[in-house]
Amino acid sequence: MAGDGTDQRALQYEQTLMYGRYTQELGVFAKEEAARIRESGQRRSLSNRSLLEYDKGRCAKCRICTVRCQKFLISRVGEDWIFLILLGLVMALVSWVVDFCIALCLQAQKWMYGGLDSNILLQYLAWVTYPVVLITFSAGFTQILAPQAVGSGIPEMKTILRGVVLKEYLTFKTFVAKVIGLTCALGSGMPLGKEGPFVHIASLCAALLSKFMSLFGGIYENESRNIEMLAAACAVGVGCCFAAPIGGVLFSIEVTSTFFAVRNYWRGFFAATFSAFIFRVLAVWNKDEETITALFKTRFRLDFPFDLQELPAFAVIGIASGFGGALFVYLNRLIVQFIRKQKTINKFLMKKRLLYPALVTLIISTLTFPPGFGQFMAGKLTQKESLVTLLDNRTWAKQGIAEEFDYIGNSQAWQHPQVNVFVTLVLFIVMKFWMSALATTIPVPCGAFMPVFVIGAAFGRLVGESMAAWFPDGIHMDGTIYNIMPGGYAVVGAAALSGAVTHTVSTAVIVFELTGQISHILPVMIAVILANAVAQALQPSLYDSIIRIKKLPYLPELGFGHHEKYNIRVEDIMVRDVRYITLNCTYRDLHGVLLIGQLKTLALVESAESMILLGSIERAQLQSLLTQQLGRPRRLEYIRERSMEEKKKRLSVGSDRNSDDGSHRASQEVRFQISTEESTFSPTNTGPQKPLKPALKRSSVVERPTELPTSPNDNSGIALKNLFCASPDAEALEDDGDAEDDMTMREIAEWEEMQLDEQVDFTNCKIDPAPFQLVERTSLHKTHTIFSLLGLDHAYVTSIGRLIGVVSLKELRKAIEGSVTVKGVKVRPPLASFRDSGTTSSSENEATELHKLWDRHKNLSLPREHTASSDETDEKSH
Amino acid sequence: MAGDGTDQRALQYEQTLMYGRYTQELGVFAKEEAARIRESGQRRSLSNRSLLEYDKGRCAKCRICTVRCQKFLISRVGEDWIFLILLGLVMALVSWVVDFCIALCLQAQKWMYGGLDSNILLQYLAWVTYPVVLITFSAGFTQILAPQAVGSGIPEMKTILRGVVLKEYLTFKTFVAKVIGLTCALGSGMPLGKEGPFVHIASLCAALLSKFMSLFGGIYENESRNIEMLAAACAVGVGCCFAAPIGGVLFSIEVTSTFFAVRNYWRGFFAATFSAFIFRVLAVWNKDEETITALFKTRFRLDFPFDLQELPAFAVIGIASGFGGALFVYLNRLIVQFIRKQKTINKFLMKKRLLYPALVTLIISTLTFPPGFGQFMAGKLTQKESLVTLLDNRTWAKQGIAEEFDYIGNSQAWQHPQVNVFVTLVLFIVMKFWMSALATTIPVPCGAFMPVFVIGAAFGRLVGESMAAWFPDGIHMDGTIYNIMPGGYAVVGAAALSGAVTHTVSTAVIVFELTGQISHILPVMIAVILANAVAQALQPSLYDSIIRIKKLPYLPELGFGHHEKYNIRVEDIMVRDVRYITLNCTYRDLHGVLLIGQLKTLALVESAESMILLGSIERAQLQSLLTQQLGRPRRLEYIRERSMEEKKKRLSVGSDRNSDDGSHRASQEVRFQISTEESTFSPTNTGPQKPLKPALKRSSVVERPTELPTSPNDNSGIALKNLFCASPDAEALEDDGDAEDDMTMREIAEWEEMQLDEQVDFTNCKIDPAPFQLVERTSLHKTHTIFSLLGLDHAYVTSIGRLIGVVSLKELRKAIEGSVTVKGVKVRPPLASFRDSGTTSSSENEATELHKLWDRHKNLSLPREHTASSDETDEKSH
Repeated sequence: MAGDGTDQRALQYEQTLMYGRYTQELGVFAKEEAARIRESGQRRSLSNRSLLEYDKGRCAKCRICTVRCQKFLISRVGEDWIFLILLGLVMALVSWVVDFCIALCLQAQKWMYGGLDSNILLQYLAWVTYPVVLITFSAGFTQILAPQAVGSGIPEMKTILRGVVLKEYLTFKTFVAKVIGLTCALGSGMPLGKEGPFVHIASLCAALLSKFMSLFGGIYENESRNIEMLAAACAVGVGCCFAAPIGGVLFSIEVTSTFFAVRNYWRGFFAATFSAFIFRVLAVWNKDEETITALFKTRFRLDFPFDLQELPAFAVIGIASGFGGALFVYLNRLIVQFIRKQKTINKFLMKKRLLYPALVTLIISTLTFPPGFGQFMAGKLTQKESLVTLLDNRTWAKQGIAEEFDYIGNSQAWQHPQVNVFVTLVLFIVMKFWMSALATTIPVPCGAFMPVFVIGAAFGRLVGESMAAWFPDGIHMDGTIYNIMPGGYAVVGAAALSGAVTHTVSTAVIVFELTGQISHILPVMIAVILANAVAQALQPSLYDSIIRIKKLPYLPELGFGHHEKYNIRVEDIMVRDVRYITLNCTYRDLHGVLLIGQLKTLALVESAESMILLGSIERAQLQSLLTQQLGRPRRLEYIRERSMEEKKKRLSVGSDRNSDDGSHRASQEVRFQISTEESTFSPTNTGPQKPLKPALKRSSVVERPTELPTSPNDNSGIALKNLFCASPDAEALEDDGDAEDDMTMREIAEWEEMQLDEQVDFTNCKIDPAPFQLVERTSLHKTHTIFSLLGLDHAYVTSIGRLIGVVSLKELRKAIEGSVTVKGVKVRPPLASFRDSGTTSSSENEATELHKLWDRHKNLSLPREHTASSDETDEKSH
Repeated sequence: MAGDGTDQRALQYEQTLMYGRYTQELGVFAKEEAARIRESGQRRSLSNRSLLEYDKGRCAKCRICTVRCQKFLISRVGEDWIFLILLGLVMALVSWVVDFCIALCLQAQKWMYGGLDSNILLQYLAWVTYPVVLITFSAGFTQILAPQAVGSGIPEMKTILRGVVLKEYLTFKTFVAKVIGLTCALGSGMPLGKEGPFVHIASLCAALLSKFMSLFGGIYENESRNIEMLAAACAVGVGCCFAAPIGGVLFSIEVTSTFFAVRNYWRGFFAATFSAFIFRVLAVWNKDEETITALFKTRFRLDFPFDLQELPAFAVIGIASGFGGALFVYLNRLIVQFIRKQKTINKFLMKKRLLYPALVTLIISTLTFPPGFGQFMAGKLTQKESLVTLLDNRTWAKQGIAEEFDYIGNSQAWQHPQVNVFVTLVLFIVMKFWMSALATTIPVPCGAFMPVFVIGAAFGRLVGESMAAWFPDGIHMDGTIYNIMPGGYAVVGAAALSGAVTHTVSTAVIVFELTGQISHILPVMIAVILANAVAQALQPSLYDSIIRIKKLPYLPELGFGHHEKYNIRVEDIMVRDVRYITLNCTYRDLHGVLLIGQLKTLALVESAESMILLGSIERAQLQSLLTQQLGRPRRLEYIRERSMEEKKKRLSVGSDRNSDDGSHRASQEVRFQISTEESTFSPTNTGPQKPLKPALKRSSVVERPTELPTSPNDNSGIALKNLFCASPDAEALEDDGDAEDDMTMREIAEWEEMQLDEQVDFTNCKIDPAPFQLVERTSLHKTHTIFSLLGLDHAYVTSIGRLIGVVSLKELRKAIEGSVTVKGVKVRPPLASFRDSGTTSSSENEATELHKLWDRHKNLSLPREHTASSDETDEKSH
C-alpha cells in the first residue's frame, strides 16, 4: 500500500494524464486532520484560559477591555458577509485578469498569423506552434507544481462537498498552477472551457482566504462552516465566469450538491452577485463597455419572439441535444479508457509526459488552420467570436450571398464561396464535437462547458437556418409577417446541449443571463428538460462520468423516476456478517478481526451473546492497541522485569543502554506471529486453539503495491504487514536501543501467545459512541437520502439495540446501480448495461453466502480466506 | 385534552378568524396514519401472494401474462412524469379558469360602476356593496365547507413538507373551498394575492391526483414519494400563477424547504414549465395574446438599460424595501394580535363571524372609491392594471401634463389635475400598505405576495420618477443622452419589497419572467439582497410570522450569520434527566413514568445501571400495556380463576354472562390507584414503597380542557385520567358484560397492587429499535441540520451506548431563539427582543435543576410534582 518516490510519481502521472485513481485512504486522512484540528482547538482554549487567569492577577480590567475590543474586531472580521465580499472581489479580479490575458494571447496568435500571410508554410507553423507551446507549457507547469490542478475540478468539488477530504486539493500551489495553467490552456485557442476550473479556483480562493482570516479569529476552523463557504465559492466561480449570478448559484447547486441547505442560499447569491457586478464593472472601467450589460448580448425582437408552431422544432433540438450530450460523455470516456488500455501507448506516453498534449494540440490546430480545412468550419474564429456570430439575430441562409452582410468580419467566416452555410455548420458541429471531447482529456486545467455550449449553439443555428429556409416568411398566419430568428434557435441549442452534458436545468438561466434576453424562456425550458430526460436515461453526467473514471468516493444518484427503489429494504442489501469486537474480548480476538477484511471501522458490541451495539472503533485505533500490547517496548519491559527476577544469572541492568547490534539482529527476526486459523472471530470463542505457526519472516519491506500476492493463502501475512506498515515500524526501530533483546524466536512466540490472551483495555481508545443506525425495514430510498444527507460511509443495522448487520456505501452503490435482485425483480435501469464498466455484479452476495457457510463450519479456513481477499481487492479498487 | 363538538367548533373559528392554534396532537395522528398505511400495505402484499399461489394451480401462464400486462400498464401510469404532466395540466386549467372568473367579476364591477355614473350615491353603493357581498360570501363559504382553506397556505405547506401531518389540509372539500373562495375574494378587487393560495391548491391537487392514481397502482402510497410530489406541486403553484417556471421552482424551494434534494429539482422544473406553458397557450387560444409572451411584458431599451451611476439609487430602493418589508410583517402581526387581545371585540366577532370581513372590506372599498379619496391614489385601477401602468417605460414626471400621454386609459389614473404625480404615488403606497396588511387578515383564501409586489413597484416608480426629475437628461457623460427609465426602478422595487416580505431572493427571477426582460439583472439582484439583509435582521418572514401566530409545529431557521451557533454543544442544551424505562421494569415503574410529563416517546434502556439505550417506545404503547395489565378483562379473568378455585362458596360460573347492573356500579368505582409517591421513577428502585392511597374517584369524565386544575398537587390524578381518557375506557365499557365483578374496592386495590409489581412483558410492544442518537459534542449547528434534515422530534444523547440525555425540538428551539446561556455568553440575535412573544426563557433550565435536586433527595415529592406540571403546561401550549 505504501510506495516509494518514483512509484508515487508514476501513479500521480497516471492520475493527471487520464483522470487517475485515488488509492489513498482518504477517510483515514480526514480523521487525522479532524483530530489535529480538535487538539489545536483544545490547546487554544487552554492558552486562553491561562491568559484570563493571568489577567485576574493585576491590571485585570484594562486587559479584559483590550481582549474584548480585540474580540469585537475579530468577530466583525469573522462575519460571513465580509468573507463573501472579499471572496467575490478576489474572484472577479482573477476572472477579469485571466480573461484579459487570454484575450492578449489570442490576439498575439492572430497578429502572428496575420503578419505572415506571405508564406503559407510559415503561417501554418505559426498557427500550430503557438498553441502547442502554450499547451505543453501549461501541462508541464501544472504537472510540476500541482498535478491536482488538472481537469475541471467540479467532480472533485462534488466529492469534497460530500464531506470527503481530498489531499492537496485546496492549497496555494494548486491555486497558482490552476490559474496559470488555465490561462495558458485557454490562450492557445483550443476548444476548452473556463467554467469548471473557475469553480475549483473559487473554492481554492475560499479555502485560502478562510485560512488567512483564521489568523484573526477562531470561527474559520469550523468544518461545517468551511463546507458552507465552499458551496458559496462554487457559485461564485460560475457567477464571475459568465457574469451570471443566478445561473451560477443554480448551476453550482445542481452540479455539486445532493442536498442543499436553503439557509446557505443567500451566501451564494450574495457572493456571486457581488462578484459578477465587480467583474462587469471592471469591463466598464476598462472602457470595453459603456455600461453593465450581458456578456453575449442579443438583440432579438421583443414583441413576437417566436410562434407557437415553432415549438416542435425547439423540442427536436432538445431531444437531439439529449442524444448528443450522452454521446459526448460516452466519447470522452471512451477516449480516456482507450488510451489507458493500450499498454504500449500508455508506456510510451508515461515516459514522454508532454507528448500527449502536444500531439492532441497539433492535430486539432492543424485541422482548424484557416487556409486549410479550417476554412470550411470557421476555423479562424475564437470560441467567443463563434458564439457571438452564432447568436446573431440575422438570418444567414435566406440572404445566401456573403455580400449581403452589411458588416464585415466575423460572420463572414461562416460563408464560403464554394460551399453552403449549412455544410459549414455541419462540419463545424461534427469536427468540434470530437475535438472538444478529445481536448478535454489533455492534462491541463480545463472545462468542457463552453465548447459544448458553442457546439449546441451551432446545432441550434443549423436547425434555425433550416427553418428559416423552409418558411421564408415565417409561420404566423394572421397578417403580419414575423420572420424566423435562427439566433433564438442557437440560444435554445446552446442551453439544451450544455444541459444534456452536465445534467442540469439551470443552463437555461445561464443562457438568459449570458444573452441578456429572457424572451425565449419557454422554448429554452422545454428543450433543456427534454435534453435532460434523454441524456439522463442514457449516460451519467460528464462530471459523474469523470468521478467514475477517477474512482473518487461517490454515491450515485437515485435515477429518474425509478420507483422500485421505494420497495427495497435495508435488510435486502445489508451485510449480515458484521465484523465486531466485544467489550471483553482478548487481544487474540482483536488480532483475528484485524486480519480479516479492510473495513475502516469496526463495531463494538457489549458481548457476543447480547450483541448490543455500543459504538464503533477505527481500525487504526485497534491497530495501535495491538501494537502497544505486542510491541517491542512492552517486550523489553517484560525482559527487564524478568531479568530483575533472574538477577543472579544476568550481570547488571546498566548494560541495557548500549547494545545496538542486538537490535539490528532483532529487527530481522520474526516480529509478529500470525495465525492462519480464524476461530478467534467466531462469537463464542469456545473452540480449541490451534498452535500458532510463524507465517511471516520479516526480511525486507515490500515496496510496490503491484507486487502484492494474489493467492488467497498468502494473504494473511500481507494483511498483517499492511497493518503495521505505518508508524509502528518506525517507532519500534527507534526504541531498539533501549534494552537488550535476548529472547529467542521461540521465547518471543511464547510471550506473544501470552500477551494475545490478555483482555483488551479500551480505556485509552477513541470510540465513536453513536454510529449511525438503521432498521431492517428502512427503504433504500430513505437510506440513500440519509447517506447523502449526512455524508455517511457506513451505518449499522440494529434491532432493539442488537447489531444485526451493516450497510456501507459499497452495498448502497451496488443496490442503486441495480445488481441486487430483490423478490425476483431485477432492479436495473432500462439502459444500465450501457453504463456498466464491467464490475462483477454478484460478488457481494457470494461473499455473504460464503460468510454464512463459514459460520456453520468453523474448521474450514479456506473459504474465509478467500472471502477476505476478495473483499480486500474489491475495496482497494475504489 | 379532548373537547366536545361545540368546543371544537369554537376553537376552529378562532383558528380561521385569526390564524388559530393547533392544539391537536399532530404527532399521534401521524403515527396512527403511518400504522394504518403500513397495515394496509401488508394486507395488499398478502393478497398479492395468495393470488400468485392461486395462479400456480391452473391456466398459470395466461394469468401471469395478464398480471404482467396489468403491472406494465400500472407502472407506466405510475411514472412520475405522467403524474407531473397531469398535475401541470390540471393546475394550468385551474389557474386560467380562476383568472378568467376574476376578470369577469372585476369587469362586472366596472360595468356596474360605469353604468351608474349619473348618481354618485348609487355609484358608491354599487362600488362598495359588490366587494362586501363577494368577500362575505367567500368567508362564509370557506367557513362552512373547509375552514382550513383560509389564508395563504404556504405556512401550512412548509409545515407539511417538514413531515408534520396537518389534518384535513389536503382534502377535496378544502380544494373546492379554496378555489371558489379565492375566486370570489380576488374578484372583489381587494388588495389580495393569488400566489400563496395557489401553492396550497397545487398541493391539494397533487394529493388528490395521487389518491386517484393509487387506484391504479401501489406506489402512490409511499410517504416520501408523496412529499416529493408535494414539493413539486408547490413549484407548479407558483409557476402557473405567474407563468414563471424558474422563479416558481426557486420561490417554492425558498419558501417551503429547509433542505432541498437536488434530485427532486427536475420534477419541479418539469411540472412548472409544462404548467406555465399550458397556461400561456390557453391565453393564445383564447385570442388574448398573439403568441406566448410574459404576463407583464415590458419594453425597456436593451442597449443601455441603466447607468453605473444609478446603482446607488437602486441600493436605496433595496434598503428602504427591507425596512418596509419588515414593517409590513410587523403590522400584519400587530393587527392579528390586537384583534385577538381585545376580548370584547373578539367576543362580538365570534358571534357575528362574517362581520369582520364585511367591515374591513367596507373600509377599504370606501377609501378607494374613485370619485372620493380614490382619485388621489389611482383607486379605479385593478391590481393588474396598476402593475402594468407602473412598469410602463415612459416617464410621467417629465411630461407632467396628462395630455402628453398619447394613450388614454389606465396611465391617466395616476394623473390628477390638482395634485402632482408624486403625491399620488406616495398616497398610493401609504394607503395600499396598511390596506394590504389589513386585508390579508380577512379569513378568506388569500395571499399577500401580489399586493406587496404592487406596492414595491409603486415605490420603485416613485424613486425612478424622482431620479428622472432630478436628472432630466440622464446621468451618462459621454455624448449620447440616455434618459432614466422609471419603469426599471419599478421592476427593482417590486422585486425588493416582495423579497423583503417573504425573505426570498428568487423574487428577482420571478420579476424577470413576469416582465420578460432580464436587462436589469444586477440592480434587481443588488436591491433584493440588500432588502433581504435588512428585513431578515428585523423580522421573521411573513410566512414564519404566520407559523408563529398559528403555533404550527416548526423549527426556526438558524439566522443570518450567527456564528455563535457553532460553539454551542448538545451537552449545553440537552435535558440530562431523561425519562426512561428499563427492560426488566415492573408495571409500577411504567405507571410512575407515565404519570410524569407528557413526552410522546420514552427511552428503553437495558438496565438502570448500564443505561444502554435499546430503543424508544411510544407513550400510547405503554399506556395500552398498562391498560391490559390493570384492565377490567384481566381482572375478570382473575375473578374467574379465583372463583374456579373457590367453587364451593360460589354457585356457578354460568352467571358471568348476565350481570349488567354490576358493571354500571363498577364503572363508578375506583378504577385506578394512584401513587403520589414518585420513587418508582428513580433508577435503582431501592427505597421503601409507601402504601398507596386511592387518589381519584372516577365519577364523571372531565370534558373541558379549560377545567384542568392548575394546582400542582392535584395534578397526578388528572394526568392519569388524561392517560386513560381515549380508547381504553371504551374498551373497558364494552367488556363490562363479560363477568360478574364482585370485588370490593379494597380487593381491587390489592389486586392492582399485585399486578403493578409484575414485570413488564414487552413482546407485543412496538419498539423503535434505532432512535436517533447524538453525542455530547455535537454542535448546535449540526443538531439543527440533522433535525431539519430528518424531520426529527427528539434525539437521544448517548455516550458509548449509555443514555445520558435527550434533546427535543423544544430545547433546540429555545437554544436557537437565544434563551440559553452558554459559557457566560448570552446567545441572542441583535433584535431578538423585538421578536419575542413573551415566553418564559429559563423554565427549562429551572426544570432541569429541579430534576437534579430531586434525584438527590428522593423522598421529597413536591418539587417533582411541580416540575411535571410545569412541563405539561409548557408542552400543551405548543
